[in-house]
Amino acid sequence: MTSSSNPSVFLYGPGEARIEDTPEPTITEPTDAIVRIKYVGVCGSDVHFWNHGGINGKSVSEMLPLVMGHEASGTIHAVGQAVTHVKPGDNVAIEPGRPCRVCPRCKGGVYNLCPSMKFAACPPDTPGCLTKYYKIPADFCYRLPATVGLQEGVLAEPLAVAAHAVRMVDVKPGQSVVVFGSGTIGLVCGAVARTFGAKKVVLVDILDHKLEFARRFFDESVTTFKPDANASAEQNAARIVEENDLGLGADAVIEASGAESSVNTAIHVLRPGGSFVQTGLGKPVINFPIVTMSEKELHVHGAFRYNTGDFRVAMDVLESGAFPLKSLITKIFDFEQTTDAWEETKHGRGIKNMIRGYGLKDPTRTAHL
Amino acid sequence: MTSSSNPSVFLYGPGEARIEDTPEPTITEPTDAIVRIKYVGVCGSDVHFWNHGGINGKSVSEMLPLVMGHEASGTIHAVGQAVTHVKPGDNVAIEPGRPCRVCPRCKGGVYNLCPSMKFAACPPDTPGCLTKYYKIPADFCYRLPATVGLQEGVLAEPLAVAAHAVRMVDVKPGQSVVVFGSGTIGLVCGAVARTFGAKKVVLVDILDHKLEFARRFFDESVTTFKPDANASAEQNAARIVEENDLGLGADAVIEASGAESSVNTAIHVLRPGGSFVQTGLGKPVINFPIVTMSEKELHVHGAFRYNTGDFRVAMDVLESGAFPLKSLITKIFDFEQTTDAWEETKHGRGIKNMIRGYGLKDPTRTAHL
Amino acid sequence: MTSSSNPSVFLYGPGEARIEDTPEPTITEPTDAIVRIKYVGVCGSDVHFWNHGGINGKSVSEMLPLVMGHEASGTIHAVGQAVTHVKPGDNVAIEPGRPCRVCPRCKGGVYNLCPSMKFAACPPDTPGCLTKYYKIPADFCYRLPATVGLQEGVLAEPLAVAAHAVRMVDVKPGQSVVVFGSGTIGLVCGAVARTFGAKKVVLVDILDHKLEFARRFFDESVTTFKPDANASAEQNAARIVEENDLGLGADAVIEASGAESSVNTAIHVLRPGGSFVQTGLGKPVINFPIVTMSEKELHVHGAFRYNTGDFRVAMDVLESGAFPLKSLITKIFDFEQTTDAWEETKHGRGIKNMIRGYGLKDPTRTAHL
Amino acid sequence: MTSSSNPSVFLYGPGEARIEDTPEPTITEPTDAIVRIKYVGVCGSDVHFWNHGGINGKSVSEMLPLVMGHEASGTIHAVGQAVTHVKPGDNVAIEPGRPCRVCPRCKGGVYNLCPSMKFAACPPDTPGCLTKYYKIPADFCYRLPATVGLQEGVLAEPLAVAAHAVRMVDVKPGQSVVVFGSGTIGLVCGAVARTFGAKKVVLVDILDHKLEFARRFFDESVTTFKPDANASAEQNAARIVEENDLGLGADAVIEASGAESSVNTAIHVLRPGGSFVQTGLGKPVINFPIVTMSEKELHVHGAFRYNTGDFRVAMDVLESGAFPLKSLITKIFDFEQTTDAWEETKHGRGIKNMIRGYGLKDPTRTAHL
Repeated sequence: MTSSSNPSVFLYGPGEARIEDTPEPTITEPTDAIVRIKYVGVCGSDVHFWNHGGINGKSVSEMLPLVMGHEASGTIHAVGQAVTHVKPGDNVAIEPGRPCRVCPRCKGGVYNLCPSMKFAACPPDTPGCLTKYYKIPADFCYRLPATVGLQEGVLAEPLAVAAHAVRMVDVKPGQSVVVFGSGTIGLVCGAVARTFGAKKVVLVDILDHKLEFARRFFDESVTTFKPDANASAEQNAARIVEENDLGLGADAVIEASGAESSVNTAIHVLRPGGSFVQTGLGKPVINFPIVTMSEKELHVHGAFRYNTGDFRVAMDVLESGAFPLKSLITKIFDFEQTTDAWEETKHGRGIKNMIRGYGLKDPTRTAHL
Repeated sequence: MTSSSNPSVFLYGPGEARIEDTPEPTITEPTDAIVRIKYVGVCGSDVHFWNHGGINGKSVSEMLPLVMGHEASGTIHAVGQAVTHVKPGDNVAIEPGRPCRVCPRCKGGVYNLCPSMKFAACPPDTPGCLTKYYKIPADFCYRLPATVGLQEGVLAEPLAVAAHAVRMVDVKPGQSVVVFGSGTIGLVCGAVARTFGAKKVVLVDILDHKLEFARRFFDESVTTFKPDANASAEQNAARIVEENDLGLGADAVIEASGAESSVNTAIHVLRPGGSFVQTGLGKPVINFPIVTMSEKELHVHGAFRYNTGDFRVAMDVLESGAFPLKSLITKIFDFEQTTDAWEETKHGRGIKNMIRGYGLKDPTRTAHL
Repeated sequence: MTSSSNPSVFLYGPGEARIEDTPEPTITEPTDAIVRIKYVGVCGSDVHFWNHGGINGKSVSEMLPLVMGHEASGTIHAVGQAVTHVKPGDNVAIEPGRPCRVCPRCKGGVYNLCPSMKFAACPPDTPGCLTKYYKIPADFCYRLPATVGLQEGVLAEPLAVAAHAVRMVDVKPGQSVVVFGSGTIGLVCGAVARTFGAKKVVLVDILDHKLEFARRFFDESVTTFKPDANASAEQNAARIVEENDLGLGADAVIEASGAESSVNTAIHVLRPGGSFVQTGLGKPVINFPIVTMSEKELHVHGAFRYNTGDFRVAMDVLESGAFPLKSLITKIFDFEQTTDAWEETKHGRGIKNMIRGYGLKDPTRTAHL
Repeated sequence: MTSSSNPSVFLYGPGEARIEDTPEPTITEPTDAIVRIKYVGVCGSDVHFWNHGGINGKSVSEMLPLVMGHEASGTIHAVGQAVTHVKPGDNVAIEPGRPCRVCPRCKGGVYNLCPSMKFAACPPDTPGCLTKYYKIPADFCYRLPATVGLQEGVLAEPLAVAAHAVRMVDVKPGQSVVVFGSGTIGLVCGAVARTFGAKKVVLVDILDHKLEFARRFFDESVTTFKPDANASAEQNAARIVEENDLGLGADAVIEASGAESSVNTAIHVLRPGGSFVQTGLGKPVINFPIVTMSEKELHVHGAFRYNTGDFRVAMDVLESGAFPLKSLITKIFDFEQTTDAWEETKHGRGIKNMIRGYGLKDPTRTAHL
């Protein structure tokens, strides 16, 4: 490849990906930025694409190939003339979407619901971050504080997902929050819930090693719970309430597992008037205890990606140093090993696996990761 | 019975009810009121009790007998010394619950979620309004405007249910609202949604005669839709959107049917960021399209009865004369015919059937009904 | 002037304005629109510029000359290729600002607070609408319904100001609202408050002819009040409460006069927990009863222009035909008579005076105004 | 006095107070509690009463004598039969008001705005806590955690004032908050703002020793500012913004000084769209920059006492041990020295002075204070 090339990881179909060159992007708008990608996180949705060549039952054969990757950090390579908040050389986390900015959703504060959103690695036509140089509106680049490395910077994206979920259920000081699922998203939801003042956080998972990790990750304000697979949702919910002294029930639930049994337990674990947010995706249609929702007058929210303020919260959590976020990063793969990284995650090994940017073979070169 | 007796309709079990005397209540608190009951509406939940001897799977055999009835109007018979807003002789609508007033729910503005609520005709121990004299805290009596009769006054209760639902989804001027179910609750939800400024209201039902009634009840700002039983929820939703020019979807849905198919159509008919409220009760657990809810970032609320301000809205709607609410009242039964009224409603005959208060055989005696 | 010229009204200083030519704008962005201006309303702020050569104490000598005018309607002349919601020939109302769309305010739903906002006729550098062809982002053009003429369309701007104010104090059905000032803004605030369901609206002004107009403009749900200049704010407030049976006080106040005495009366007229919004501008610093505000726990808001949804409300009010909005339009001046229109308004003659677009001498030519 | 007596501190007029006996209260409602008062804090309003025989210009001569005191802790002496959350012997903090519980304010979640509120030491007729045994509805007693002593427990009341103020401006993680006034209320407002996640807190006062205390009380996330008495409000505001890198201005202001200059600086220090809350009381009418408020679209709130959840926040802050709250307690006076305590506070000596409950001469007797 020539010096001006832009190698990128294309998914061609289930289990089929290859690195190909694309034209190196150039600044065309005064508000653009081009980021030299340094690290890209592997997300469950990447693995879903890798397995199925698509997501959510969408027929994507005609949409492929597609450049994958949407959790990324990097270094500013170039900016348009109107950009002042970042400059070449700055390390940044990336918010990987481009809303239209003109529709009522965008102008009304919910640009994540923009029907014309172009989101990284999302069919039909928006390339992802597994590329050498990535062009993005500069306002979606967040400069990393001096104390936050580029690997941690990748965690800004899942932290923003968590911020969006926690803000959706409006967690306040003193409240109790039950988080279902103790993977990356569940853990960072717990961290953000604590940041918002949750007095008690309970992390629920069926895997002992995930719960063990959670106990090490948090202080004693966070407890864990392993549901009894033979017990009903009501029974597991009752045990969570009892073991954690939650009174009439939890103030809020963050459902980050996508599992039908979790959703049901979640509805039963909430106090009357409590709030639920669904942030993980699982089966499209599930059994749902709607009468319990009605009689307890619950507030059940979807949460889709993130919008204004969510990355700001994420950056603050990273900067605060309040949680051992680096410990979430399990293994770093070279750019050429991208499919190995996907396989590793597919088999449930590790919490957050990452891929190095193209040509960045030796991480020890970089002073501060 | 003696002049001081208080005849009441007791439910003893499925299909078994009888009128028995109870002691006439007396004022014991300075904030009490005693209401001479004039009319009691028949609600779907009454019929459920009549059929099953209980509701929502609760085992109620040991709770019976219970005095039934919770939609009622009447005339103030006596008040405690601290009561100033109503006086003997005033016609009133009744809000039939007694929250504890001391728990955080009561003091926090959501007394409908009070775990110690004593609600009329609700097991285990709170008698209902099918009685001659009904004691209630006076602040839960709402004086009827001079232009509103005692029969219409019974409709304050379903209107308050509607007000609670409409406020839960925060209907604003200009919005589009789809109401599922075109019985009493669906119709008054439509009326309250219009009162809150909804520009378009669509009433959905599977029964032609209910839709015909709805078209007569409302002006042309309200349209109707009959779902195709052979079409999917997505397909019916798409047709509602198309026929009513709803753009990305409806701003809000009020689900007042309790039907699984309605809930599913409702989720699909909403625009991204739209709001759903469940006010009818049906099957406890249903299939629910949770991924669609997540990806559209919907807000799904339960609505349980009513709280501060809901009866105020109801009284304003009654007073406004903006809707032909009297036309909802189908048939009036004598107190002794209570079970006939339940049977009539059970068989789907009429919209709102009512029962006259004890001893009020001849309604023509009353100047203003 | 040649056929491609763009005559515009420039303010050069206090009492000094002239029509000069400017280059006709061309589409440069795919989201642009160019509007052939048909009518421009005269606003109090225009008159302030005409009197003082500036506003709010800003030194504007170096900013002039400036093209004036920010309330306008017109016909789409050309659109960029990405524009679909309007097409050449459509009659539109104009929202006359250009927010940056990238800052946290713009992305957070409050683009009216964008520090880089370019607003029509606002120093230092943004030309206004008193021009033949006006270029604007197409998403800020609102197509007029077939039943709304171009003169009425000018009222979309003050109606949007009113919508913003009414939404700021969250007027709900059943509430009482007191509006101070009965000029254009006060009247349309009353209309929008009624649209949002206000049960009682009281319009306050010191001029009898304005109050008389208000009584003709509204039905009996709106009352008027003329303060006693010799009475205290508390006394006038007490009389408003008493005459209108407002109980503990008004639920909301919209202050559209900018007068110190009105602000003080407003604070005293509110019930505990009530809301106030300031939409008119007067003296920069006034005496303010802050202890009363504290002890009644009032909520006092500024309102600055408008943002997402406000013009939507305005268009709905125009379309509804619920108010005789045409009656607000007092006199139409030719483009060349612009300074006469300003003088007319300066001397308090008429409610809303308007200026015809350049070259539109004979309004009877236009089928539907 | 006999063993059943109830000595209480009565204010008779400016500078005139004496201890007199009153009947010992008895449980009359099943929800009552009687508290043996252990400590009573001295508040600025007590001193105002001591100086003027009243407050806020109310003519109080006919209301006196009145038992003073409204910040108190104690030990449960007796409870009614319906009380379960506290029992005799429990140490508690007291929320010293009795709302009516039946009006729309009480049922709507804002019982602090109840027009029939009976508040401790508030004219005309509600006795305060400077008494041996104090009767109160038990739901307004908050059990102190084992780690919180009875002296600290008195601080629950000012902490609840702070919680109410902080919640009014909805402080969120990452925000900047400027607190005007660095007395007890200012300091605990800073503490609660930090608890709600404020990233930067600036405490403003004109007294060096108060600012010095503030710097010792907080960690480095809290800075201090001493206004220049010769500078304008705009100038002082600009310096606060610049020194603390607040960008467009502070997200929120808590005004706890009551000083006119502070209010003005506060309005100028806020960013567009920022929020202000007034919690201290000063001059009834002040100069106020209302045009700045309008143009920045600020949200200015009164805050009156506290309501549901505020004492809960206070108890959590006390329990957390996150702030050296004990250091706020300067000096403890015997019951018989009450007027000395008032004089001490009147002369600005100390931060929070307290008075021991009747007969509690020797604090070393009590194991845990």
